[in-house]
Amino acid sequence: MIEDKNPQRTSIAQLGEFGLIDHLTKNFEINQPSTLKGIGDDAAVLDFKDKKVVVSTDLLIEGVHFDLAYMPLKHLGYKAVVVNVSDICAMNAKPTQITVSVAVSNRFPLEALDELFAGITHAAREYNVDVIGGDTTSSQKGLIISITAIGEADEEEIVYRNGAKQTDLLVVTGDIGAAYMGLQVLEREKQVFQVNPNSQPDLDAYTYLIERQLKPEARKDVRTLLHALEIKPTSMIDISDGLSSEIMHLCKQSKVGCNLYEDKLPIDPTFINVCEEFNIDSTTVAINGGEDYELLFTIAMEDFEKIKANPNFTIIGHMTQESEGIHLVTRANTKIALKARGWDALTQ
Amino acid sequence: MIEDKNPQRTSIAQLGEFGLIDHLTKNFEINQPSTLKGIGDDAAVLDFKDKKVVVSTDLLIEGVHFDLAYMPLKHLGYKAVVVNVSDICAMNAKPTQITVSVAVSNRFPLEALDELFAGITHAAREYNVDVIGGDTTSSQKGLIISITAIGEADEEEIVYRNGAKQTDLLVVTGDIGAAYMGLQVLEREKQVFQVNPNSQPDLDAYTYLIERQLKPEARKDVRTLLHALEIKPTSMIDISDGLSSEIMHLCKQSKVGCNLYEDKLPIDPTFINVCEEFNIDSTTVAINGGEDYELLFTIAMEDFEKIKANPNFTIIGHMTQESEGIHLVTRANTKIALKARGWDALTQ
Repeated sequence: MIEDKNPQRTSIAQLGEFGLIDHLTKNFEINQPSTLKGIGDDAAVLDFKDKKVVVSTDLLIEGVHFDLAYMPLKHLGYKAVVVNVSDICAMNAKPTQITVSVAVSNRFPLEALDELFAGITHAAREYNVDVIGGDTTSSQKGLIISITAIGEADEEEIVYRNGAKQTDLLVVTGDIGAAYMGLQVLEREKQVFQVNPNSQPDLDAYTYLIERQLKPEARKDVRTLLHALEIKPTSMIDISDGLSSEIMHLCKQSKVGCNLYEDKLPIDPTFINVCEEFNIDSTTVAINGGEDYELLFTIAMEDFEKIKANPNFTIIGHMTQESEGIHLVTRANTKIALKARGWDALTQ
Repeated sequence: MIEDKNPQRTSIAQLGEFGLIDHLTKNFEINQPSTLKGIGDDAAVLDFKDKKVVVSTDLLIEGVHFDLAYMPLKHLGYKAVVVNVSDICAMNAKPTQITVSVAVSNRFPLEALDELFAGITHAAREYNVDVIGGDTTSSQKGLIISITAIGEADEEEIVYRNGAKQTDLLVVTGDIGAAYMGLQVLEREKQVFQVNPNSQPDLDAYTYLIERQLKPEARKDVRTLLHALEIKPTSMIDISDGLSSEIMHLCKQSKVGCNLYEDKLPIDPTFINVCEEFNIDSTTVAINGGEDYELLFTIAMEDFEKIKANPNFTIIGHMTQESEGIHLVTRANTKIALKARGWDALTQ
């Protein structure tokens, strides 16, 4: 519906596997000093010297993780990189390389793959990661993207999920919930379009939410920001499955409890408006909606002064003894036990 | 057809995404000193000290790369690891870690995934690689496996595709063609089974060929063998797409030509018998059949004496000036230009 109808359609089979790989990878640049050899051999060769290496991987499946009815292929390529880079950022590491594997059914012409790879190339430049390998093949159905992201960090910089202490403060970057509501808007427009393909959607009021869904950014800047503030988080995770679910991961692995304050949740004004329009409780979406790709972390109480007025960060709660459990403290000052209701790709 | 019909069927959705990942990954062990942190955080953390890091990735799609009608899931899991480990071996590096991502449609019960992961676990133990991460999700259709393999090597050990010199000898490990004929036997049995599901196939005569197709091994031993012989190949590649196609890769990247000798091709006696039974020219299969996962490499002429009588290696040709082209020298001493007719997943 948003996607351009490209008049040119070149069959992928015409190029052959090696021709296709040459065609798709010709725009990839090597910029990282740690990349000794990129695409073109049995494997890439990397040199991290005295740095530690951080590795994460994700699989994105059409119809499960994305819907091409409203996700332009260029945005999808960009987002696929962002999702993986975000995991590296969540270790407080610097993203350096990615591998990209793609499988497509024969309904995709070469021009569609070009769009996808244009998005991947754009994201690789934006985040300064080298594309060092991958695989391109056919699928029985739909589009499948598998990305592995690699990063580097000094050992003492790396932040795990299991380091939160019971008196730590809980901090989140940016705002939350918008990506989920962006998806609701797009789903609604898709239904409108199915009923009337000639309708011209006016999505101006939803620009921010849709952008959060279609073109999220990984918080690569947070590492630098925290470094400048001389803060090292005690634990960290990225918010892909929803705040609630990620808090439970941090608590479980760190063996602590948590009080999360409803009135502290950083949400965008347009997010509240659209929640009202959809008649959905904004707090429920803010804590359960996923795909924001913000970072959630804990810091020692002593670091409060360093972070309190910083517009990049919001203190949303504090950790407690494990036995106290994990609760949302509402505006009415009642405590509600948090449940992980994160976005679960397997039960959709 | 070969697969056991497991009477128990547990729906994957019952476990939820995190429950499923916990269940599937509980048997993975960490044995490599370079693995600081495996599964359980946003990313794994590795430490290669002064070694270089080698990375390769592959995507395996049901109906394109494998057929579950004759590929038992346990074998498939094993083979998926082998295919990736083989790429690391082809760099003359030591495989150390893998990430494993799997997408399945809801036709797969938990017991099927358990079989697949049993094969993955078995291969990880056999090749001493740590499973350090991955992703498990649902697919719209069929089974999808994405594996990234990581290895380590000293810089001076690493062998690329582009180092062959015009006077080098061309060497292959093991024997070739058998995996392709194993596939032909299995395809034939599948057709027999479709006509008569009660037929009991007698596959004794084809054991070796079927094993080469269903349970190939990566030549992790070659690195050690060559080290003991004090030979460093000048170029190397693994034979996944067929000898002919891989020779052309080495020649193209090294800017040399090649004479390959038909009478030197290492083939198994049962392979010849089955080629005759299928009325297929054995040389054509030996040079074009893929999936042998043997290693193909070039060595300096001075190393001839070190390798000539070694049962692990066969000298099958020699490199030439680039302008001389790439030829098969037949038993009748005629030269035929080689064409890359390698197995191409995109034109199937």
